[in-house]
Amino acid sequence: MVKVGIVGATGYGGNELVRLLLNHQEAKIVWLSSRSYAKEQFSDIYGSYFNIVDDELISDNLEDYLDQVDVVFFATPHGVASKMITKEMLEKVKVIDLSADYRLDDQETYEQWYQCGHPSWNMMENAVFGLCEINRDQIKDARLLANPGCYPTCSSLSLYPLVKAGLIETDTIIIDALSGTSGAGRSAKIPNLFCEVNESVKAYGIANHRHTPEIEMILNGASGEKFNVTFTPHLIPINRGILTTSYATLKEGITQEDVARAYKMYDDEKFLRVLKDGVYPEIRNVRCSNYIDINFKIDPRCNRIIVVGAMDNLVKGAAGQAIQNMNIMYGLEESMGIDQAPNSL
Amino acid sequence: MVKVGIVGATGYGGNELVRLLLNHQEAKIVWLSSRSYAKEQFSDIYGSYFNIVDDELISDNLEDYLDQVDVVFFATPHGVASKMITKEMLEKVKVIDLSADYRLDDQETYEQWYQCGHPSWNMMENAVFGLCEINRDQIKDARLLANPGCYPTCSSLSLYPLVKAGLIETDTIIIDALSGTSGAGRSAKIPNLFCEVNESVKAYGIANHRHTPEIEMILNGASGEKFNVTFTPHLIPINRGILTTSYATLKEGITQEDVARAYKMYDDEKFLRVLKDGVYPEIRNVRCSNYIDINFKIDPRCNRIIVVGAMDNLVKGAAGQAIQNMNIMYGLEESMGIDQAPNSL
Amino acid sequence: MVKVGIVGATGYGGNELVRLLLNHQEAKIVWLSSRSYAKEQFSDIYGSYFNIVDDELISDNLEDYLDQVDVVFFATPHGVASKMITKEMLEKVKVIDLSADYRLDDQETYEQWYQCGHPSWNMMENAVFGLCEINRDQIKDARLLANPGCYPTCSSLSLYPLVKAGLIETDTIIIDALSGTSGAGRSAKIPNLFCEVNESVKAYGIANHRHTPEIEMILNGASGEKFNVTFTPHLIPINRGILTTSYATLKEGITQEDVARAYKMYDDEKFLRVLKDGVYPEIRNVRCSNYIDINFKIDPRCNRIIVVGAMDNLVKGAAGQAIQNMNIMYGLEESMGIDQAPNSL
Amino acid sequence: MVKVGIVGATGYGGNELVRLLLNHQEAKIVWLSSRSYAKEQFSDIYGSYFNIVDDELISDNLEDYLDQVDVVFFATPHGVASKMITKEMLEKVKVIDLSADYRLDDQETYEQWYQCGHPSWNMMENAVFGLCEINRDQIKDARLLANPGCYPTCSSLSLYPLVKAGLIETDTIIIDALSGTSGAGRSAKIPNLFCEVNESVKAYGIANHRHTPEIEMILNGASGEKFNVTFTPHLIPINRGILTTSYATLKEGITQEDVARAYKMYDDEKFLRVLKDGVYPEIRNVRCSNYIDINFKIDPRCNRIIVVGAMDNLVKGAAGQAIQNMNIMYGLEESMGIDQAPNSL
Repeated sequence: MVKVGIVGATGYGGNELVRLLLNHQEAKIVWLSSRSYAKEQFSDIYGSYFNIVDDELISDNLEDYLDQVDVVFFATPHGVASKMITKEMLEKVKVIDLSADYRLDDQETYEQWYQCGHPSWNMMENAVFGLCEINRDQIKDARLLANPGCYPTCSSLSLYPLVKAGLIETDTIIIDALSGTSGAGRSAKIPNLFCEVNESVKAYGIANHRHTPEIEMILNGASGEKFNVTFTPHLIPINRGILTTSYATLKEGITQEDVARAYKMYDDEKFLRVLKDGVYPEIRNVRCSNYIDINFKIDPRCNRIIVVGAMDNLVKGAAGQAIQNMNIMYGLEESMGIDQAPNSL
Repeated sequence: MVKVGIVGATGYGGNELVRLLLNHQEAKIVWLSSRSYAKEQFSDIYGSYFNIVDDELISDNLEDYLDQVDVVFFATPHGVASKMITKEMLEKVKVIDLSADYRLDDQETYEQWYQCGHPSWNMMENAVFGLCEINRDQIKDARLLANPGCYPTCSSLSLYPLVKAGLIETDTIIIDALSGTSGAGRSAKIPNLFCEVNESVKAYGIANHRHTPEIEMILNGASGEKFNVTFTPHLIPINRGILTTSYATLKEGITQEDVARAYKMYDDEKFLRVLKDGVYPEIRNVRCSNYIDINFKIDPRCNRIIVVGAMDNLVKGAAGQAIQNMNIMYGLEESMGIDQAPNSL
Repeated sequence: MVKVGIVGATGYGGNELVRLLLNHQEAKIVWLSSRSYAKEQFSDIYGSYFNIVDDELISDNLEDYLDQVDVVFFATPHGVASKMITKEMLEKVKVIDLSADYRLDDQETYEQWYQCGHPSWNMMENAVFGLCEINRDQIKDARLLANPGCYPTCSSLSLYPLVKAGLIETDTIIIDALSGTSGAGRSAKIPNLFCEVNESVKAYGIANHRHTPEIEMILNGASGEKFNVTFTPHLIPINRGILTTSYATLKEGITQEDVARAYKMYDDEKFLRVLKDGVYPEIRNVRCSNYIDINFKIDPRCNRIIVVGAMDNLVKGAAGQAIQNMNIMYGLEESMGIDQAPNSL
Repeated sequence: MVKVGIVGATGYGGNELVRLLLNHQEAKIVWLSSRSYAKEQFSDIYGSYFNIVDDELISDNLEDYLDQVDVVFFATPHGVASKMITKEMLEKVKVIDLSADYRLDDQETYEQWYQCGHPSWNMMENAVFGLCEINRDQIKDARLLANPGCYPTCSSLSLYPLVKAGLIETDTIIIDALSGTSGAGRSAKIPNLFCEVNESVKAYGIANHRHTPEIEMILNGASGEKFNVTFTPHLIPINRGILTTSYATLKEGITQEDVARAYKMYDDEKFLRVLKDGVYPEIRNVRCSNYIDINFKIDPRCNRIIVVGAMDNLVKGAAGQAIQNMNIMYGLEESMGIDQAPNSL
């Protein structure tokens, strides 16, 4: 039984970790921490857990609590984990960080896109990027696991086979993405109010969203080349879910069969579903699950391929993938606790 | 392992049965039937099940299939089960009927409210009304189980302790209820279109909704008296969930403590959560779960009690309660397969 | 041309005043004030007004600005207007206060329900309660107009004819109400976030909502008696709109015809639509308009009447009724600027 | 006073025409027709018009009614208008067709994309494509006006200045579009049900949506070249609104200033708002209005331009632009009846 602590348990990512871990046969939540709500009961913040998880939240002064657990999940805003995680901590526990602090492998890139210094770049040598289906082998031995961002997980995994197989002109990649509002976090800001989000859509972070270099890191890794992508996220009025529509020019002579063959690399991946011909991903078909649905269509008039991916941003894009990583790190069945069918309603 | 067949699998209730039964350790779906979609794959109708439940749907000519299963769930529109269920069928399998066909214990009442004759009233002698927390003992031996309606489950269980304990003037009971749109079923009608439902609310079935006599049957049963209630349902633009706000005049001298004591009858009921003082049910706090949240407030200026209940109409109001009934009928742990925490996002 | 200033222009009520006044042939907005956003452009706060209302917001130090206008609308939170309005101000301008500060006619009741002292109760002698269809005559001469609350407008007007005609047992009145989220205002609070409101419903202010004494004031006024009502508001995931479902026991012998006759008092009221027999109000049928739709049904089994009313909380429940009041105060056609048909999509 | 008849009045487009024409000082609705609901009252179909437009719907046998009107709007599904419109009709009345029947200027293209023959291609010689801001001069004299599609209006107008000024590589144009559900029409189909649309997003018509050749016709017209575009629409859970995010590679050496200069061609266009630097379109900022909001951003890392446009699909994308065309055809002020500010709530 893996003993778990969660830092930042009252955000939407933390809440989702709790929800999923309650279904996990080999993991047990030992404590939950929160800076804002320390000493309150978890079920006072999320009434859904009344009579289920009534634990009192501890503060984020973790020292006294590390001995009680095997693994600590950080579901904190960017810049928090990198101030709290130390070598000493990593000697006591494994860490899975759902924030962006240890994802990028280049310090300059980090500082440029996140517009701040990194407080503990030296820790990066321990960090493993936890894109499960791609980095499985390194993840096994990780003590500091950087859980990928939501947009990068969905868009990169949907494009990865094309880049890996060298089927597209990589400098033509454009990713247009839609995210549910839980992606904006549980913070009391006017733009996140119901009446500001409902019955509307907006693009944001155009040409400068922080997930861009992470997507590039993954896809550059697939090809060995260095190239940039254009990435445009949009906020849509749903609670959870991401849909990415990606575009690229096909290399000369590439056929439908070549592309289909490239996606066969996912044939044994439980959570990556390449749909039937002519069927395209919809967010409801992956909701509340760890699945990513993917399909492509070639536009022969423009010699372009369009790839659609859909995923639940809170599950495969955050807590679910974090648990998948935990399972790999502890030699458990990879889908343990996260194998529920999607909930389309 | 209980072997299960589901008739009417492609409606929202059937879909929810499938979703929940996939998590059940001691039950296994053997076949799914559908009149409209026979011979199609279930995952063609609900893409969420791609690679998970790709079974071909059988028609509703069940004869050849009864031998393969122990229990058959009917998730069909009103009037279908009562035409299909026979004594011979009940000798082969147990039946759990999610429709209204065998709920009411009085033929005249049935025919008056449903405005049609009942094709097999003689079967009623076998039927047990499956309101789990109230009828547990009879349910154990049922072969034909009538699963309660969504509104009756939420409203009756939230009022039951008051009626049972004789704390209210029963002829003053008013139930004002709100239901998500999945309650209207998966039928292609203009009033159920997104643009007709979204950003609106309406009352319907005012003073003549078919769930009224079912509520009265339950509450009359609690008190032994015969009384009527006023019941007004409303359609609200959410997928799932019911919230009922019920009103009644307190009998003279009844105090907060008297009421709190009455609700103690639910202290050992896992799925009926009487909330803390001053905390009231919200649909999100029970979503996708088998819980009903309940709390009350006394309005001393009017000597009236207000009771709020919240429930997921597809789980405790349909498929979840049906599985809870199956568990009781087969001597399994009552919460097996339906003990997930609510999903508030 | 009536020259208008708006205090608190950046709240949802202020925004709606601007939207409606732009269509008014005989009124002209001269200035907009905002405490939080002074010196910013109005169209920076509400991008919908770009190139239409780009005025710089003034602070709420109004002294220099009173001479420029004929009428000042206060669309401020409770407790602001009553600190700012003075006898000197009323000599210069007419005031229409959309907040609750001058609505209640009894100081003790005010202080008890609003849990605070009233800073300028002496001003009350000038205040007229602006329920247009009921108080038209007094409104004509008002200099300080208290615009009614949203819930009281919808529920009281839907019940008024019954009370006035003495058809119901007034101590049995129960009002169950649903409101869109704009009613909660434009403040950055976690319970108002999209993900907290969407796909959920909750009751709030049970048995102690501040609109209760206002409803009682109106209905007591209709009958001359003193009685209490039970009022339960709920928050629903739509932007705008209120639906109230009200219940009362009919006096002995009262018939459908008696009730229909009572509602004839609205026959000449453009904005109060008593619907056809069997047709009930829906929020979408009044959205973005100044109409209130009303209909009733008698439940003979319980000898009870159910009255449903629907209204747009921002229009007839706030800005629209305020403009209707302005029209009456200035002798303009009562529907000027607010006679658009509802927008059901 | 222009006398108006509307064919297909009970669809969402027809409903919007009625809503807007009620505000038009120089137009008057004389009759409304409907194939499905003939002889019913319009207000029985759309309850919002109760006491406002209670007219009985006529059937679509128009002969007896043409003499009563000056202009007939067809708000019918594709393929209806082209069967009904004749030369004789055009001698009696002007026609504004909101469907796709007369939009495309090439018969082969029409038949290929719409997968059917065209019943009256000879009428095309009379048809004028009504993209107001581009074709104003031809529109003045039109007797048969083809009102542009929703997606083409928003995407083409947001890209037009770039193509016209020759700033982009036209064969790199990609348009990613999001539409509210009213765009799917008022037909009783399961994919349009509330529970199927809500809390989800899907792409559809990938690489073969019928609006593609219309977009190409407009943009090819701007440049004089022949090129193809990739266009991907998505369905999102809101009632009304379109947002398009378009991508293209900039020609070498093109700067921010060059682009800004190109968009100056819209400086005098009331309804086309090029937003301030750094401010991007949101659907709520154009809702219920005839405005299109546009802005662009250059991604220098990829030498690509991203252009965002937002529009109300029912107004500028259908009924609003149709009225704007009517105004031009009758020499009225172009914004008459459609100059309301957007309604952001």
